[in-house]
Amino acid sequence: MAEFDRVWVGARLCTMAEGLGVVPDGAVAAKDGRIAWVGPRAALPAHGAPEVDCGGAWILPGLVDCHTHLVFGGNRAAEFERRLAGATYEEIAREGGGILSTVRATRAAGEDELLAAALPRLDALLAEGVTTVEVKSGYGLEFEAERRMLRAARALGEARAVSVCTSFLGAHAVPPEYRGRQGDYAAAAAAMIGPLADEGLVDAVDAFCERIAFTSAETAALFERARARGLPVKLHADQLSDGGGAALAARFGALSADHLEHASGEGLAAMAAAGTVAVLLPGATYFIREERQPDIAAMRAAGLRMAVATDMNPGSSPARSLLLMLNMACTLYRLTVEEALLGVTRHAAAALGMADRGVLAPGMRADLAMFRVGSPAELCYWMGGNPCIGRVVAGRDA
Amino acid sequence: MAEFDRVWVGARLCTMAEGLGVVPDGAVAAKDGRIAWVGPRAALPAHGAPEVDCGGAWILPGLVDCHTHLVFGGNRAAEFERRLAGATYEEIAREGGGILSTVRATRAAGEDELLAAALPRLDALLAEGVTTVEVKSGYGLEFEAERRMLRAARALGEARAVSVCTSFLGAHAVPPEYRGRQGDYAAAAAAMIGPLADEGLVDAVDAFCERIAFTSAETAALFERARARGLPVKLHADQLSDGGGAALAARFGALSADHLEHASGEGLAAMAAAGTVAVLLPGATYFIREERQPDIAAMRAAGLRMAVATDMNPGSSPARSLLLMLNMACTLYRLTVEEALLGVTRHAAAALGMADRGVLAPGMRADLAMFRVGSPAELCYWMGGNPCIGRVVAGRDA
Ligand SMILES: [Zn+2]
Ligand SMILES: [Zn+2]
Repeated sequence: MAEFDRVWVGARLCTMAEGLGVVPDGAVAAKDGRIAWVGPRAALPAHGAPEVDCGGAWILPGLVDCHTHLVFGGNRAAEFERRLAGATYEEIAREGGGILSTVRATRAAGEDELLAAALPRLDALLAEGVTTVEVKSGYGLEFEAERRMLRAARALGEARAVSVCTSFLGAHAVPPEYRGRQGDYAAAAAAMIGPLADEGLVDAVDAFCERIAFTSAETAALFERARARGLPVKLHADQLSDGGGAALAARFGALSADHLEHASGEGLAAMAAAGTVAVLLPGATYFIREERQPDIAAMRAAGLRMAVATDMNPGSSPARSLLLMLNMACTLYRLTVEEALLGVTRHAAAALGMADRGVLAPGMRADLAMFRVGSPAELCYWMGGNPCIGRVVAGRDA
Repeated sequence: MAEFDRVWVGARLCTMAEGLGVVPDGAVAAKDGRIAWVGPRAALPAHGAPEVDCGGAWILPGLVDCHTHLVFGGNRAAEFERRLAGATYEEIAREGGGILSTVRATRAAGEDELLAAALPRLDALLAEGVTTVEVKSGYGLEFEAERRMLRAARALGEARAVSVCTSFLGAHAVPPEYRGRQGDYAAAAAAMIGPLADEGLVDAVDAFCERIAFTSAETAALFERARARGLPVKLHADQLSDGGGAALAARFGALSADHLEHASGEGLAAMAAAGTVAVLLPGATYFIREERQPDIAAMRAAGLRMAVATDMNPGSSPARSLLLMLNMACTLYRLTVEEALLGVTRHAAAALGMADRGVLAPGMRADLAMFRVGSPAELCYWMGGNPCIGRVVAGRDA
């Protein structure tokens, strides 16, 4: 007699183990927060645990949003409104808009305020079946404010049934007090890694490598520091121009390189060789009306794993729905349904270096997302509306 | 002492009476299902009715989704999946896909099935603050099936606290049994108007005037029939090509002409002169990746009223969120926040010929939508997430 804590039956499964891994009449058993058994119901071993009938719902691995900036002060709705009313970038900047307005609001907020502002945004993601979310710093741009952001991110994981993975993104922008001294700020950001990691606040180190942000050399120096500290890296790469970000990420064995609208074929090939995941952020492409799209055909040809995330941030992707990103990845980038769903499960987990989730298989965390849909394709097809009817986190209803 | 049934205070109002019509600390009073008083709280007359404190939430007129096809059988997620996997339109058509697959599924469904399938879609809209929704027929394409669709639409209005406005869209496509005899089908559709109207199932008559659908002459004959019956008309016009749909709609004093991606300047001017509302459907532009957008600048220059709707339908806009359409109208079409919000309130009501809603003013229906946002712009700014915290329909919590 198998020893399980709980068994879900009457479900259709996407195990995501090989492609979608569909099991038409499936069962999943959990023991001690892990998946103990998964497969066709007819093959379920005898057991004495309580069974939950899912009434034909689809079960997927709990969704993973592997790229968010969801902790921040204020928002940029007023700037959005001004721009629609015809204000130029220059006018907005003169009025104190842009990323630095978010930096000001974030610096002015206490940890509790940051947490309170982030919670509804997190809740919107969780309501759709997300069980793991990455959260970046990068609007503090000074030690104490970066620390508050990362502590707020950790607090999100305490406040809700969700795994929070933190990325230190001190090298996101140059703060005003360092204007004209970008190199000095890059060095200062690198120096924050140690103390923040000492506090257990850093799961990975990220940077924004771009003409309007940090150079390859500055990014490489930061990554060296991360490497010395034993921390994995990831990179905002080649979003607005080809700055060799993909190749740089690959050189450091990055978990992921993200955006990639302008990445070169060589960069993508280097990523594939390094096992670096390509994180696609279609919400940003849509919201900033970027005409250049990531080269999905080249990514496929290179054998890259592709993930899909919200990029939730106040400036370029105020997206509070990972399901909507599935639709945008399919509609705008022409990902297949299978690619898109792998992108918010197995490949998103890989983008965070988390080998214990993203697939329904024995030994994996019992993180489940349940949907009332007729087919997995419906998760990508609809724009808006939420078919999620349940989440299980580490074996427990959440 | 004023006689009210109920008063909402502690609210910020967008009355939509003149532009957004913001009242920073406002109150709304209802009596017998209508708004009896609205204005700054400081000016609220003495009264003995219960007061509801809205805690600083924003109140708008209940939202109006003025163009939907939300009653239908099946869905087209499998076709979406096939197309992403590389299937051509021809292959999909050979496999029985396209609009005729929805016609088959709709014809096969009973009224109760149509109702049950539509309810979750309607509920998604209502959850965001919609209090009035237009629903079209047009997937039956034969008398009994069109009738079932319209009866299901009416039943939606009984099942939920929402006003349902029906449009007969028999001239949506040519059914397979009329292949090669389009004119005959157009005449048959026109002949359905009387009997369906006799049953009280038709609030307006709509048609799809397009190269791939019905000609101007067929549409005009249908509209003559509607006029003879005293029914207002509206039109799917100039979506895929300039077929003179805007001018045709104007000639019949249509309530609205919808889509309009390819409408000519003359057509738009004629609409303005006729008072015809331009209904914008950015979800369809996005989903079918139409490169041509409606000419918003020309619409502004002509003084046209613009509405924004979901077009919720299984083929070209599976959109279950009117708030997302606000974002798309702003992001894709560059509507201002004020234009977008007028588009789902006052101008959407006008597109349905409903003079009793869409504005917070004395004598209007007490249909309210309440949102926990910092500013009205946030309703347009976010992609996903639902800030709606309450709906009031005819003075009652819904
Ligand atoms: Zn980012
Ligand atoms: Zn339509």
